[in-house]
Amino acid sequence: MNTIGRFITLEGGEGAGKSTQARFIRDWLQAQHRSVVLTREPGGSPLAEAIRGLVLNDWEEGIAPATEALLMFAARAAHVRSTILPALRAGSDVICDRFTDSSYAYQGAGKGVDESALAALESLSLEGLRPDLTLIFDLPPSVGLARAQARGDANRFEAETLEFMERVRAGFLRRAAQQPQRYAIVDAAADQAAVQQAVVKILESRL
Amino acid sequence: MNTIGRFITLEGGEGAGKSTQARFIRDWLQAQHRSVVLTREPGGSPLAEAIRGLVLNDWEEGIAPATEALLMFAARAAHVRSTILPALRAGSDVICDRFTDSSYAYQGAGKGVDESALAALESLSLEGLRPDLTLIFDLPPSVGLARAQARGDANRFEAETLEFMERVRAGFLRRAAQQPQRYAIVDAAADQAAVQQAVVKILESRL
Repeated sequence: MNTIGRFITLEGGEGAGKSTQARFIRDWLQAQHRSVVLTREPGGSPLAEAIRGLVLNDWEEGIAPATEALLMFAARAAHVRSTILPALRAGSDVICDRFTDSSYAYQGAGKGVDESALAALESLSLEGLRPDLTLIFDLPPSVGLARAQARGDANRFEAETLEFMERVRAGFLRRAAQQPQRYAIVDAAADQAAVQQAVVKILESRL
Repeated sequence: MNTIGRFITLEGGEGAGKSTQARFIRDWLQAQHRSVVLTREPGGSPLAEAIRGLVLNDWEEGIAPATEALLMFAARAAHVRSTILPALRAGSDVICDRFTDSSYAYQGAGKGVDESALAALESLSLEGLRPDLTLIFDLPPSVGLARAQARGDANRFEAETLEFMERVRAGFLRRAAQQPQRYAIVDAAADQAAVQQAVVKILESRL
């Protein structure tokens, strides 16, 4: 990838505070005079947002895990091509709230889609793009779900069981363990000031 | 696949008369007291039809061939699960106007998506389902395009060049040559009576 900007992805279960931290990281990078694009998945381009609408909709026929994975990667392919790569090539840093690791954790570890099938979808849709840094906001699912419910914005994914969320959490941690140079794990159960301090430390040492 | 009905797919370029022949085959099977489901791709279930709307839309950002392939197989996965498999299991024959071979011909041979990537999408989305019989309605692209234009219902795919259509045609013929026991090629440039006669001969010998 002939890119100049840095590509940073934020991952984790529900209620982990990813969106708040994404805005904090954007402000932190901008204070260093970086141009920053803040985006999120699924979505991030008109086509990808339309696919997001289909994925989050509650279809009477249901959505099989394989179908969900195909739609997530279709949205990702459009997002990468239309939004992320152009920004990185123009020299902006890109912060993305959820990316490929979420597919491995949710559709893979959570719902049983074969990991090698996900790898095939990844290689088809990403044109070789990989995040420079992935922050995993880790916390016990019970804590995350309570937070998401308090926030009152539960979607189809947040209606899953705690057992499912435990598999998702383990999915994220397993990927981080396999490639520690690309991942950093943040204890998202800590209070917000402590989380921000941990994030700054990671950004200062890794970027 | 533990199915009772026969799964018949119709393939070919634009203007090959697939839809007319699909109805003819339905009537022929029904005359033999078969229960028949006639369907078409992309589409065939509410979710798949919604995906069809996205694929056929003319997005300002464009749709990359990989994105198109992912969406086609997402729609196909929903179609198979919600419509085709239940019908086959209930003992109906299913006639489908376009199926997986169209993805190999259009996104693969036509637009350069890697064949092994398409095979990975196929194995992820089809739960092992394969057509019992695939009829390829073959004709020179110049003839097919003239027919499609005369019909006046050109869509995004019908706006492609003749050179593209030649690659698509070769893509279909190559797949038929690799697995002759599953495919039958029909000369779709012949007049309608001759085409129907050829179709009946194939159905009588193959089903």
